[in-house]
Amino acid sequence: MPDAKRPAEFAELLSLWAEVDDLENVMSILNWDEQTKMPKGGAEARADHKATVQRILHQKLSSPRIGRLLESLASYQAEIPYDSDEAGMLRATRRAYDRATKVPEALVIEMSRTGSNGFNTWLRAREAKDFSLFAGDLERIVDVMVKVAGALGYDRTPMDALLDQREPGMKVADLEQLFGDLRGRLVPLAKKIFERVDAADSGAIHQAYDIPGQWKAGLMAVRSIGFNLDEYGRADTSVHPFSTTFSPQDVRITTRFMENYLPASLFAFLHEAGHGQYMQGIPVRFRRTPISKQCSAGFSESQSRMWENLVGRSREFSKYLLPRLREIFPRQLSAVDVETWYRAVNRVRPSFIRVEADEVTYNLHIMLRFELEKDVLAGRVRVKDLAGAWNAKFKEYLGIEPPNDLVGVLQDIHWSRQFGASFQGYTLGNVISAQLFQAALPVNPSMPEQLEQGNCSALLEWTRKNVHAHGSKFVPQELIVKATGKPLSTEPYLNYIESKYRDIYGL
Amino acid sequence: MPDAKRPAEFAELLSLWAEVDDLENVMSILNWDEQTKMPKGGAEARADHKATVQRILHQKLSSPRIGRLLESLASYQAEIPYDSDEAGMLRATRRAYDRATKVPEALVIEMSRTGSNGFNTWLRAREAKDFSLFAGDLERIVDVMVKVAGALGYDRTPMDALLDQREPGMKVADLEQLFGDLRGRLVPLAKKIFERVDAADSGAIHQAYDIPGQWKAGLMAVRSIGFNLDEYGRADTSVHPFSTTFSPQDVRITTRFMENYLPASLFAFLHEAGHGQYMQGIPVRFRRTPISKQCSAGFSESQSRMWENLVGRSREFSKYLLPRLREIFPRQLSAVDVETWYRAVNRVRPSFIRVEADEVTYNLHIMLRFELEKDVLAGRVRVKDLAGAWNAKFKEYLGIEPPNDLVGVLQDIHWSRQFGASFQGYTLGNVISAQLFQAALPVNPSMPEQLEQGNCSALLEWTRKNVHAHGSKFVPQELIVKATGKPLSTEPYLNYIESKYRDIYGL
Repeated sequence: MPDAKRPAEFAELLSLWAEVDDLENVMSILNWDEQTKMPKGGAEARADHKATVQRILHQKLSSPRIGRLLESLASYQAEIPYDSDEAGMLRATRRAYDRATKVPEALVIEMSRTGSNGFNTWLRAREAKDFSLFAGDLERIVDVMVKVAGALGYDRTPMDALLDQREPGMKVADLEQLFGDLRGRLVPLAKKIFERVDAADSGAIHQAYDIPGQWKAGLMAVRSIGFNLDEYGRADTSVHPFSTTFSPQDVRITTRFMENYLPASLFAFLHEAGHGQYMQGIPVRFRRTPISKQCSAGFSESQSRMWENLVGRSREFSKYLLPRLREIFPRQLSAVDVETWYRAVNRVRPSFIRVEADEVTYNLHIMLRFELEKDVLAGRVRVKDLAGAWNAKFKEYLGIEPPNDLVGVLQDIHWSRQFGASFQGYTLGNVISAQLFQAALPVNPSMPEQLEQGNCSALLEWTRKNVHAHGSKFVPQELIVKATGKPLSTEPYLNYIESKYRDIYGL
Repeated sequence: MPDAKRPAEFAELLSLWAEVDDLENVMSILNWDEQTKMPKGGAEARADHKATVQRILHQKLSSPRIGRLLESLASYQAEIPYDSDEAGMLRATRRAYDRATKVPEALVIEMSRTGSNGFNTWLRAREAKDFSLFAGDLERIVDVMVKVAGALGYDRTPMDALLDQREPGMKVADLEQLFGDLRGRLVPLAKKIFERVDAADSGAIHQAYDIPGQWKAGLMAVRSIGFNLDEYGRADTSVHPFSTTFSPQDVRITTRFMENYLPASLFAFLHEAGHGQYMQGIPVRFRRTPISKQCSAGFSESQSRMWENLVGRSREFSKYLLPRLREIFPRQLSAVDVETWYRAVNRVRPSFIRVEADEVTYNLHIMLRFELEKDVLAGRVRVKDLAGAWNAKFKEYLGIEPPNDLVGVLQDIHWSRQFGASFQGYTLGNVISAQLFQAALPVNPSMPEQLEQGNCSALLEWTRKNVHAHGSKFVPQELIVKATGKPLSTEPYLNYIESKYRDIYGL
């Protein structure tokens, strides 16, 4: 749409939104600094800084002027093509405005403050490996989230309201169906694998790997998949790996290191760089507009999980990656061949930590969290009993019980700030990643051979064009059809998992 | 003052100010990140983020409600003691409000944008060592500053308006007098020293010092003077060393390294940590109030220069510092004794870089900048001729001419963002530091012996109590009397310089 046809109200809406977008990015900068650089003593003031920005952001976002502009632009919106940037911007603004006007300012501030305090208490509880130190803060967080859900409104369960913020248009019932499909085929597969004598020797990855070498390896890996670490990005360390964006030209990823286990940092690097590629792929012309974001948590995770797993843990890419890792860690890896490496990084075993879980058991970790969130929000499980409930469910799903809360209920950062609908994005991401990969392959049939050479550009370009280029113009169920021609389905993912692991485990 | 006696309007004023203070700290965080961590590509978006926060900050600060609250609190202010926190808060709010209402919002935004763009152009011009690449941006910065000065209002020269923002109550004429006093005694002293065969051998400090060792040395030094680097602070690198504060419990310093010259990083560390100690010394109860800041640029520099020079370059502290440096750099320093080190770090020679200049010539660097700023703002020197004017004046004052703009007009960060009244704080800081030190000594007569042991607590405690504890409750001419019992005088500083350098150079 040429500018000439845009009404003046549209320009005014965009100029109001530019401030909103700036403040959202400022919040991201405050969070990035808090997690990567801030000295401990800064926590109290940082909570104030964030609460103030959050309050102003909420005021701007829920300003009655935006409501009136949206009303007066309704006929314009009806005239322009659904797929136009302008229509996407108006839809995205409407969603954000509706959400903001439903949640009162006081609640937004309360959410920001309980989140800041919670994060710092969570850090201390982790040091003590003791959930009970965090339970009081988490109760306050849950109380706030129940109020937020009530303000947003829901029919069936508070979680529906929170889920809609992450996956617009999706219901908890849809996810129950999806998790049911996965359970039906993943649980028998996992069981068969557990019964096998372990066919994958993981000795190669459980050795002493010095941290400077791990840094070098991680940077090499993220560069090889095409993440821009120089002019448009950077990498740091944090307690919990994450990625964040302040513009497509300033995208930051983090990792963490384990001295005796290379994959912890290496695949966290690839995971976060996958997110980062999505962030770097949002068109710069969308900057400061309502569609400058990613489509949904699920689509974000589809990019991280695609580069971490479908590429990073593939036999093809291993042929490229391993020789480069050998140069950095000759002592540890010179005697390791590709097949051994491939099996080691794809070893399926029940384990405590979600971010280190294999692809077969990973979704069980998510189901567990999803169910606990539903139960706590609905009042069926009390916060103070959450560590016990976690451990019991863990035993039920994975057959093992966490020896302490650090590798149990305290492991993820998510609940330190908010609670509810926090994790389903990872499973949706797994499912979407396979559907995208399946769609990209016929367009670039030589992709597997290219990955063996460390050439990731075909896949990156396909996702740039079919996913990243749309920013947040579409809701997830629209984008999956646009990108793959089909609605969301668990089939490609389950077929991928079954064929990969039947091969590895000779089933 | 007990809270009970505070009118409700006072509480409202404080709650409005809390937001202002938060946003000022957010600006500082955005700036810190820009200078230490941001990838180059992030510059365009960062300029937007800062302009938006700056605009909101200006709106909050110039809100008519603040004006009405100040009016209705006038009688309360007249009743309470001048020295009370509350009276100080009302005076500080009045100054900030008057300033903010005089400068229109559009100009504030223009200043923020020209500053962001200028900073990035300055970085590029530095790489090319070519001022002409930066001249266009600097012209725009100067234009904005002239407009700002006009909006603030002045009698004699635009620089008066800008000076009042840094040193409330001070006039350019006062500074001309002060610089005249200094010139009268420093120029003859420098001349005599230059005529001498150089009595200070600086070979010891001009050796290869590896960067990790310089880091270690710098952290040791700043810890030894009492800067809290752990819970309440951190250190990083940047193109231009600086310090900043987001709360007294989150204070950040930076340095830069030269491979073949240890003092560059070491004394920058001490300088910035001196600032940092002031920032960490502001009472936490002043957080989010109008007196949460330091008194003035001059007082800030008094703290940095005191720790860098009166302590860091003293014979006494050298006795403590050198043995610790020898442990880090045994090859370079094992044969160097305290007297050699002391003379090397106090060697007086004409040099190009202000931050590396010795104490005798340092103020000549400041005079040069002060005069050029006055001339440019008054239209007597054109921006495009500034590099030439710089070099000519440098030759006149210091007898040498910069070989390129990087070690000439492009060396300081200050003009990359703003222009005018940028540098006099350093000379004021020198003068104030000596006056403070002279006042602290009779209270703690064994201070010199304590410094020999690396025990800096007596001096730190004295400055905590007599300077830091007041935040920005008083204007500089009040604070100097409060702390030392006397008005500002160049005597202690000139006596200190003359006695120190006559001793070193045997004059």
